[in-house]
Amino acid sequence: MTGRFITFEGLDGSGKSTQLERVARRLERHGVAHVVTREPGGTPFADLLRELFLRREAAQVDGLVELMLVFASRRQHLIEVIEPALAAGAVVLCDRFTDSTYAYQGGGRGVQPELIAEADRLATGGRMPDRTLFFDLPPEEAQRRRRGRAADRIDRESLTFYRRVHAAYRERIAGEPDRFRLIDAAAPIETVAKAVEDALGDLFPQVQRDQVRRA
Amino acid sequence: MTGRFITFEGLDGSGKSTQLERVARRLERHGVAHVVTREPGGTPFADLLRELFLRREAAQVDGLVELMLVFASRRQHLIEVIEPALAAGAVVLCDRFTDSTYAYQGGGRGVQPELIAEADRLATGGRMPDRTLFFDLPPEEAQRRRRGRAADRIDRESLTFYRRVHAAYRERIAGEPDRFRLIDAAAPIETVAKAVEDALGDLFPQVQRDQVRRA
Repeated sequence: MTGRFITFEGLDGSGKSTQLERVARRLERHGVAHVVTREPGGTPFADLLRELFLRREAAQVDGLVELMLVFASRRQHLIEVIEPALAAGAVVLCDRFTDSTYAYQGGGRGVQPELIAEADRLATGGRMPDRTLFFDLPPEEAQRRRRGRAADRIDRESLTFYRRVHAAYRERIAGEPDRFRLIDAAAPIETVAKAVEDALGDLFPQVQRDQVRRA
Repeated sequence: MTGRFITFEGLDGSGKSTQLERVARRLERHGVAHVVTREPGGTPFADLLRELFLRREAAQVDGLVELMLVFASRRQHLIEVIEPALAAGAVVLCDRFTDSTYAYQGGGRGVQPELIAEADRLATGGRMPDRTLFFDLPPEEAQRRRRGRAADRIDRESLTFYRRVHAAYRERIAGEPDRFRLIDAAAPIETVAKAVEDALGDLFPQVQRDQVRRA
C-alpha cells in the first residue's frame, strides 16, 4: 500500500493551514494514518535553513542561492519525512511544496521558471504531489486578512508582489489541471471545508462514506 | 584591468594553505592587490552553512543535499567576494574551490560527477579558476602528516577514502592540463615554495623580475 501526497497551496492569509488541520482531524477520527508537515521546515535540518532564510535580507543572499537552499531543504524533507511516510502507506498533508517556489521565488521575486525546473530536477527528480488544493483568494482580500497579523518580511511586501505570486499560481494550475483542485477561499469557512472534503473525497472513500452516513 | 583567480588544491596535510600564505606575503611585498579566501566559508552566510556541514552526521544529511549546499555557498562566495575582487583587478588566492567538490564529494563520497557538473552549471555557470596549483602528495604521506593534528570528521576518514580523493584530483588534472600546475608537495618546504613561484611566474612578471634581481 502506498500513501497519498497532498499539498495545500495559496497566498498567505488564504486559510489553507486551517483547512489542512481540519483534514488532519477528520483523518484522525476515521483512523486513516497520516502525517502533517510543512515547508520550509519539517526536519531539524530544514529548520536551520529556515533560520538562514530569515536572515537573508541582512546577508544579501542572491536569488539563485536562495533557490538552491529551498530545494536542498526540500530534498532533505522528502527523504526524511515525506517518502518514508508514503512508503508506509500514510497520507501526507503538506503545507506548501514546489508550487510555492514557482509562485513566490518565480512569480514574486522574478527567478526564471527554467532555473526552478532545473533545480527541481536536480534535487527531487521533479517530484510532484498526487493532489494539490489551491486556496484561491484575490490578492487584495489576502492582504486585508493578513493585516491583523504581526508583520514579518513577507507581510511587508506590496500588493503588486502578491498579484505576481497569484498569477504564477494560476499558471501552474493551467499547466497541470489534473493535479490541482481549486477551492474558493473567499467563501465562509464551513463552505470552504465542504469544498475541501469534496476535493479529496475520491482519495478517501471510507471517510467520504462516513460523512454521508452522518449527513 | 581584470584580476587573476588562483586556487590551491590538494589533500588535507599537503601544505597548500601554508604556501598560499607565502604567495600572499610575496604579493604584499610587491604591492600587488590581492584577496585571500577559502572554501567553504569566506562569507558570513557561508560560515553559517559551514556550521550546518559540521552537524551533517548527526542530521543524516543526504549526499545530494550536501552538494547543493556546497554550491549554494560557492555561488554566494563568488558573488560576494571573488568576482568583485577580480573586477577591481585584484589577484584572488582561494584555498579550495570546485575541484575539491569533485575530489571529496565525488571521488571520496561517491556522488556522481554528472550531478556535480549539473549543480555547478546551475550555481556558477561552470566558473573555473584561471590557474590551479595542485599540491601532489601520496595519500599515505598526507595521512602521516595529519596525524599530529586534532582529529575532526574528515581526519577520521580512512586511507581508502583519501586514495579515492587523490585519484579524482588526478582525473580533474588529466581533463584540464592547461589550468593545472602540479607541485611536488613531498619536497622540502623551500623547494615547494620555489616550485610555487615558478608555477605563477608568468602571471606576475613584476614579482618574478624582482625575484631575479634579488637572486
